[in-house]
Amino acid sequence: MSEMCAIRRTRLREQCNAAGHAAAIVSRPANVRYLAGATPHGAVLLLGRTEDLLVCTGPRDVHPAEDRPDDTLRLHVLAGPGDPAVAAADLAGAQGADSLAVEEHHLTVARHRAIRSVVPRLRLTDLAASVEQLRVVKDEEEISCLRIGAEITDQALGELLESILVGRTERHLALELERRLVDHGADGPAFTTSVATGPNAGRRGHRPTDRRVEEGDFLSVCLGAAYRGYRCEIGRTFVIGTSPADWQIELYDLVFAAQRAGREALTPGAACRDVDRAARQVLGSGGHSEGLPPATGHGVGLEIDEDPQLAPAAMGKLDACVPVTVEPGVHLPGRGGVRIDDTLVVRPEADGGPELLTITTKELLAL
Amino acid sequence: MSEMCAIRRTRLREQCNAAGHAAAIVSRPANVRYLAGATPHGAVLLLGRTEDLLVCTGPRDVHPAEDRPDDTLRLHVLAGPGDPAVAAADLAGAQGADSLAVEEHHLTVARHRAIRSVVPRLRLTDLAASVEQLRVVKDEEEISCLRIGAEITDQALGELLESILVGRTERHLALELERRLVDHGADGPAFTTSVATGPNAGRRGHRPTDRRVEEGDFLSVCLGAAYRGYRCEIGRTFVIGTSPADWQIELYDLVFAAQRAGREALTPGAACRDVDRAARQVLGSGGHSEGLPPATGHGVGLEIDEDPQLAPAAMGKLDACVPVTVEPGVHLPGRGGVRIDDTLVVRPEADGGPELLTITTKELLAL
Repeated sequence: MSEMCAIRRTRLREQCNAAGHAAAIVSRPANVRYLAGATPHGAVLLLGRTEDLLVCTGPRDVHPAEDRPDDTLRLHVLAGPGDPAVAAADLAGAQGADSLAVEEHHLTVARHRAIRSVVPRLRLTDLAASVEQLRVVKDEEEISCLRIGAEITDQALGELLESILVGRTERHLALELERRLVDHGADGPAFTTSVATGPNAGRRGHRPTDRRVEEGDFLSVCLGAAYRGYRCEIGRTFVIGTSPADWQIELYDLVFAAQRAGREALTPGAACRDVDRAARQVLGSGGHSEGLPPATGHGVGLEIDEDPQLAPAAMGKLDACVPVTVEPGVHLPGRGGVRIDDTLVVRPEADGGPELLTITTKELLAL
Repeated sequence: MSEMCAIRRTRLREQCNAAGHAAAIVSRPANVRYLAGATPHGAVLLLGRTEDLLVCTGPRDVHPAEDRPDDTLRLHVLAGPGDPAVAAADLAGAQGADSLAVEEHHLTVARHRAIRSVVPRLRLTDLAASVEQLRVVKDEEEISCLRIGAEITDQALGELLESILVGRTERHLALELERRLVDHGADGPAFTTSVATGPNAGRRGHRPTDRRVEEGDFLSVCLGAAYRGYRCEIGRTFVIGTSPADWQIELYDLVFAAQRAGREALTPGAACRDVDRAARQVLGSGGHSEGLPPATGHGVGLEIDEDPQLAPAAMGKLDACVPVTVEPGVHLPGRGGVRIDDTLVVRPEADGGPELLTITTKELLAL
């Protein structure tokens, strides 16, 4: 891990040098973790002219176990309270840098001003999304973390499906899933688990309520494990009771077909918008072109929603070794709906095509 | 609630007018919720020249139940993807404002630039922490939410103490506590529940690990319920086994005395730093002046850590109806430690002095 972090910093340094930045401060937590192997609370990474430093407010904030900073990187602990980004800027100046790139999409206006005031002679520039771009294509160690996270997620979901669901609330089912994720070795849930029943089913990002599962409901769940910081996602929709209604079968088949079309469009070199269009067209052909979510998928990694976006206006193409979700859905207000969501890794045809990480069945189960 | 939100917006508007801001955009989520009664994901509040608007990206992001925006406030939903803050700035311009205050401590440099580019003729000013300052003193409805949250928290903790603890991991105990919070009616945990055993005990913000509870351990827990958005906090330390060791009793008594001193110093008009000093001096008198946390307490409300800070360098005085935590602790590296944490509301002597919301016993229990 240490070695990987050092390689990543070298890549970033090359980009900075090419762009004319003498030094850079990385403040966005997932970016700090990517480059330093750990994110003590509030820590920033100084990519310095003479030395890289992980600047943080106190050793008590450094967590044990996996979340240990890379040993090739020196920790600089502030003596008192203070903003590590401001301290890092001061250190960059002391190392003789004349310009300093910062993450303008993460730093607030107030912090940026505080940095400027401590190093008035440094030219402040924008690092923009350089680190996010480095993070898009994953190495096999990262994919392996996602794969383990997906296994944990499948296990947690599988166990839930074996239990009695009718009469239990969305909130309880969500908590139960999160407990099972941790039971199976997750750091924790990758995001707030969503369980949606009846008229709530199929709503993207639905927050669990006290509604209880009833016979005849659609039940949609969306969950994922975080494992060593890497976050995956699965979404499935089930029917409660012995026999789904015709409209439920029709809607399910349509979303399933859309999701399959999206999955099949995942190839290295495919335009992100074309993957989105593949899924969206199927939904449109079923008369559901209105009220669709803005994206039908997105990258995952150290954050649950990262580049690339699979959306109508998305630019760019997919590369191999990019993990993404494919998650079309339809929600009919007042009636409920269906979402089906997988995490997959883009792989070339020669390697067997997209690698499905979340393998729970996508048949319409009646529970 | 609607009425309260309208009153709060009127107060903010008066401040804005006095400061010469024609309009303001509130983007920090807890501030939006305070003024609008809800925080649809990414929504911002425009305090406009002619009308206030809650600007958000999609109706699907509006959550049901309590989290419903105030009916005196019109919802402005963007047609496509986009930054609600940028859209709100555009609307402020259309309403004829010539200046616009924004939360520079919340908006990123990049978003601020995007706002500037859409309304180049508007003078952008800093709203600073105006809303946070309004939020410090709570009304009785807010305190009632905190009180219910504290009751839920006490119940969850009380139930855990009745169960067998030895052999269970920190992670499991933390999850169990969070489940019980929800069982008793919490929206969810107010923050990540901390359970720390043995050498981890007493570490502030310790993230639960797979370490199991052992005989002779200190066990410290810190948890809290969020109830209708309001977040409280309790921390307790216990001993596992029949008889605590002498060093454990001594350390416990010291932290208990420090925490009591802090609680007793909570009066309207007391300087925040004096409350901190009251607790800190006791710890110092016991030989623990090094390695102490930067603050011994903080405000709570819509966020778990808000103004005021009870810290050596804190400015300002306490007012009545300000809920704060008092949470001194000592951690001895390699051995463990003690933290005791309550949520209280500052009240005048005539009303009986500080109101203790978290009433779980602070005797040293041997479990």
